[in-house]
Amino acid sequence: MASAADAGAPDRLMAAATNSDFAYQRLAFLCDTFGPRFSGTSNLEAALDWILSEMKHDGLENVHGEEVMVPHWVRGVESAEMLQPRPRRLPMLGLGGSIATPPEGLTAEVLVVKSFAELKERAAEAAGKIVLFNVPFTTYGQTVVIRVRGAIEAARAGAVASLIRSVTPQSIQSPHTGVMVYSNSVPKIPHAAITVEDAEMMQRMQDRGQKIIVRLTMNAQTLPDTPSRNVIAEITGREKPDEIVIVSGHIDSWDVGQGAMDDGGGAMAAWEALRLMHNLGLRPRRTVRLVLWVNEETALAGARGYERRHKSELPRHVLAIESDRGTFRPEGFSVVGTKEARRAAEKWAAPLARIGADKIFAQGSEADVAQLEQDGVPTMALIDDESKYFWFHHTDADTIDKLNPRELAACSAAMAVMAYQAAEAPLPLPRSLTPSHE
Amino acid sequence: MASAADAGAPDRLMAAATNSDFAYQRLAFLCDTFGPRFSGTSNLEAALDWILSEMKHDGLENVHGEEVMVPHWVRGVESAEMLQPRPRRLPMLGLGGSIATPPEGLTAEVLVVKSFAELKERAAEAAGKIVLFNVPFTTYGQTVVIRVRGAIEAARAGAVASLIRSVTPQSIQSPHTGVMVYSNSVPKIPHAAITVEDAEMMQRMQDRGQKIIVRLTMNAQTLPDTPSRNVIAEITGREKPDEIVIVSGHIDSWDVGQGAMDDGGGAMAAWEALRLMHNLGLRPRRTVRLVLWVNEETALAGARGYERRHKSELPRHVLAIESDRGTFRPEGFSVVGTKEARRAAEKWAAPLARIGADKIFAQGSEADVAQLEQDGVPTMALIDDESKYFWFHHTDADTIDKLNPRELAACSAAMAVMAYQAAEAPLPLPRSLTPSHE
Repeated sequence: MASAADAGAPDRLMAAATNSDFAYQRLAFLCDTFGPRFSGTSNLEAALDWILSEMKHDGLENVHGEEVMVPHWVRGVESAEMLQPRPRRLPMLGLGGSIATPPEGLTAEVLVVKSFAELKERAAEAAGKIVLFNVPFTTYGQTVVIRVRGAIEAARAGAVASLIRSVTPQSIQSPHTGVMVYSNSVPKIPHAAITVEDAEMMQRMQDRGQKIIVRLTMNAQTLPDTPSRNVIAEITGREKPDEIVIVSGHIDSWDVGQGAMDDGGGAMAAWEALRLMHNLGLRPRRTVRLVLWVNEETALAGARGYERRHKSELPRHVLAIESDRGTFRPEGFSVVGTKEARRAAEKWAAPLARIGADKIFAQGSEADVAQLEQDGVPTMALIDDESKYFWFHHTDADTIDKLNPRELAACSAAMAVMAYQAAEAPLPLPRSLTPSHE
Repeated sequence: MASAADAGAPDRLMAAATNSDFAYQRLAFLCDTFGPRFSGTSNLEAALDWILSEMKHDGLENVHGEEVMVPHWVRGVESAEMLQPRPRRLPMLGLGGSIATPPEGLTAEVLVVKSFAELKERAAEAAGKIVLFNVPFTTYGQTVVIRVRGAIEAARAGAVASLIRSVTPQSIQSPHTGVMVYSNSVPKIPHAAITVEDAEMMQRMQDRGQKIIVRLTMNAQTLPDTPSRNVIAEITGREKPDEIVIVSGHIDSWDVGQGAMDDGGGAMAAWEALRLMHNLGLRPRRTVRLVLWVNEETALAGARGYERRHKSELPRHVLAIESDRGTFRPEGFSVVGTKEARRAAEKWAAPLARIGADKIFAQGSEADVAQLEQDGVPTMALIDDESKYFWFHHTDADTIDKLNPRELAACSAAMAVMAYQAAEAPLPLPRSLTPSHE
C-alpha cells in the first residue's frame, strides 16, 4: 500500500470506478436475491449477512455489524375500495406505522381537501369521515408533510381514517408508501396512500356534489423492536487512524420494490468507494469508515445508535458523507458546515469536473449523517439528477432497472474521490462553529 | 343555419373549440361516472345510453344506435406469483381473449426469451414451461406482435402458458393489457402481461443460472357474444345529403382505467366537432356523420358491422376521419388515399396552422376507418404528440387526468375543421384507384 500522499489517486479512483459495472451488478444481485430490506424482516438480515461476508472477501478492514434495535411494523393484508358512486378497487399502500382498521374494514364517506388549511375550514364536515388529502406534489419537502402529519390533522377534525394522494409528480396508478407519525393528543386513525389518479377522481366527484364511500381494510401491526445492524468496514488511516471520514448510504428500504434507488445505490456507491481505494492500494492519512446505516426509513435507529455508541469518537469525525438521492447522474455535493468547509470541498471536488460532478451546493443534508451534525461533524450529501427519483420513490417500482450502470459508477467515483480527499488532506475540514454538544 | 358555403367557418370552429373546456368536462364526467367501457359490460351500455341522450340534447340529427354483436370476454380473478428463487407477487393483467388456468393455478418453471427467434432456437427447453417474452419496446407496431401472437408461438414450442413484458417504454410496475389471438393449429394456453420490472428481473435471474418458478392463476371466460351499438349522429348535408363524411372515434375501452386516452378523447373530439358545427349553425354541403365505433379493442365488431350494414352507401362516403391516438397536442392528419387526396387535405388543413395542427402525413390509418378502405373510402387519422401515450395505454392509469383540456380542445378544433372542409368542398376527395370492392 502507498505510504504517502498520492497525487494521482483521484484520477485513478475515477478511472477504476467508471471503467467498471461491478457496483451495478453487485447491487442487482443484492436487489434480486434478497428483495426489499425492510426493518424487522429476515430479508434485511439475510442481506446484511451477505454484505458482511462480501466485504470480508473484498479485503476491507474491521468489517463488522453494530447492533441496534429497530422498529418492526408489518403491513399485512390491506385494500381500499370505492363503493359509491361507482365500485372501484383503489391501488393503495398503508403508511409505515399506521394502525390497523377493524378486521372487517372501515367504511365511511370521504371528504376531500386540498390542504391542512382547507381541512381546518371544513372541520365540521370531517367528523366520522375518511379525510382524503388531495395535495399535488410541489417539492418533496413541501408535500411530504401531508403524509407524515395527515393522520394527526384528520383525527383532530374527527375523521375515522385518512388517505393521502401519493407524494409524486408522476403516476401510473402507483401508490407510494412512507413514514407517518401520530400524536398522543388525538386518537390514532388508519392512514394510507392512494394514487394521484384516484385522488383527483374523488376530488372531481366531490366537486360534482357526489357522495363518495370508501372501504379501507388494513391489518397492519407494530411488533416489538427487533435487533438489526449498522454495517461497518474501514481502511485504517496511515497517519491519523483515529481521525475518521465516514462514507455512507442506508441499507434498509421500504417493504415494496427492491430499495434499489432508495438507498441500495447510495449504499453501493459508498461501499464501492472503499473497495476501489483498497483495490488501488490507497491508504489515506485518516481512516475512511464505510457505514451502511440501518432503519433510515422509519426511525433513524441506525444513525441514532451510531451517534450514541461513537459519542466519544465524534470530535475526531472530520467528515460524514452520505448518498441517499438515487445515484442517478452525479452533479456534486452539498456541504453542511462553515464557509471554509465549502471552500475546501470545492478544492477537493475539482478532479470530479471530468465527470461533471464537481459542483458544491451550500445546503442540504441526508437524514443519517444529519444525526452527527449536533456533534459538530461536517456533513456532505451526494447530489445527483433527481428528475425521476420521486416517480419511483417508496413504490414497488424502486427496482434496479431504474438505475444505470454508468451513472452508478460515476456516483461511486464521486464518493471515492471526495472521501479520499477528505481523508488525505493535510488539514481536516473546519468544524461547525455552533455544534450542539461540544 | 347557413345556406351556402361559409368561408369563415374554419376560424369560427377553431375559436369555439379552443375557448371551451366543454369537451374535457364532458369526457371527465363520462369517465368518472361509467368507468371503463369494455365490450359486453353494463358499464358500456349505460355509457352509450347516456351518450345517445346527450346527443339528442345537443340537437344533433338522426341520433341513434346501430346494433352489433360484440365478443364478451371476462377477466375474472387473476394473479401471478414468483415462488422461486424468491417469493414475490407479480403485478399482472391477463390478455384479452386468454383462456383460464386450472382453478388451482398453473405452476411451472419459467424460460425467458428475448424474441420469437430465440424461442425457436431454445424450443427444446420450452416444453412444460411458462415462456416469458422479455421484449423491450421499440415501436408499438413492432413490439405488439409479441402480445398478439405470443401464446401461439409459446404453445408451438410446447409451453403451458406464456407471459409478456408489458408493451410500454415506461413503467412504474404497471401491467398493460391488450388483445391476443390463438391459432387452431396449436393448443390454447393462458397468456398474460407482467411488468417491465419483473420481466427484466427474471431475465437477470435466468442469466445468473437461477431456476425461476411462477404460479399463474386466471379464471377468465369467453361468454357468448352480446348486443351492443355503434352510436351515430349527423348534420344532414345542405346540397348533397347522401354524400357522407365520417368523423369518428371508438367508444369502447379496455376493462381497466377509464378509457380516457383510448379512446374517450378521440370519441369526444369527434362528437365535439359535430356539436360545434351545430352550435355555430353550420350545415355544410355534404352530410357529416359522427360515428362512435364499438368494440375496436377486441374484434372491430363495430366497424365491421358498419361496413356490412352501410355497404351500398360506401361509394358515397367521401372521407372517414378517426382519432385514436390519445388527443394530446394535435399535429395534423395522416391520409390514406391518392396523392391528389393528400393535396386536398393539405389545403383543407391550412387554417389549422394557427394551432399547429396543419401537417399532412402520407400514411397511417386507424383500425375502425381502415375497415372502409377496402371499399375505396379515403381515410384520415388525427396525429398528435404520442410521446406519453404508451405509458398509460391499456392500463388502469388511462384516466382523464392524463389529458389536458387545452389539448383536447385543439383536437376537437382539428377534427371539426377537417370534417367541415371535406363536407363543404366543391369536389369530394379523389377515391383510391385500387379499392378492393368497387
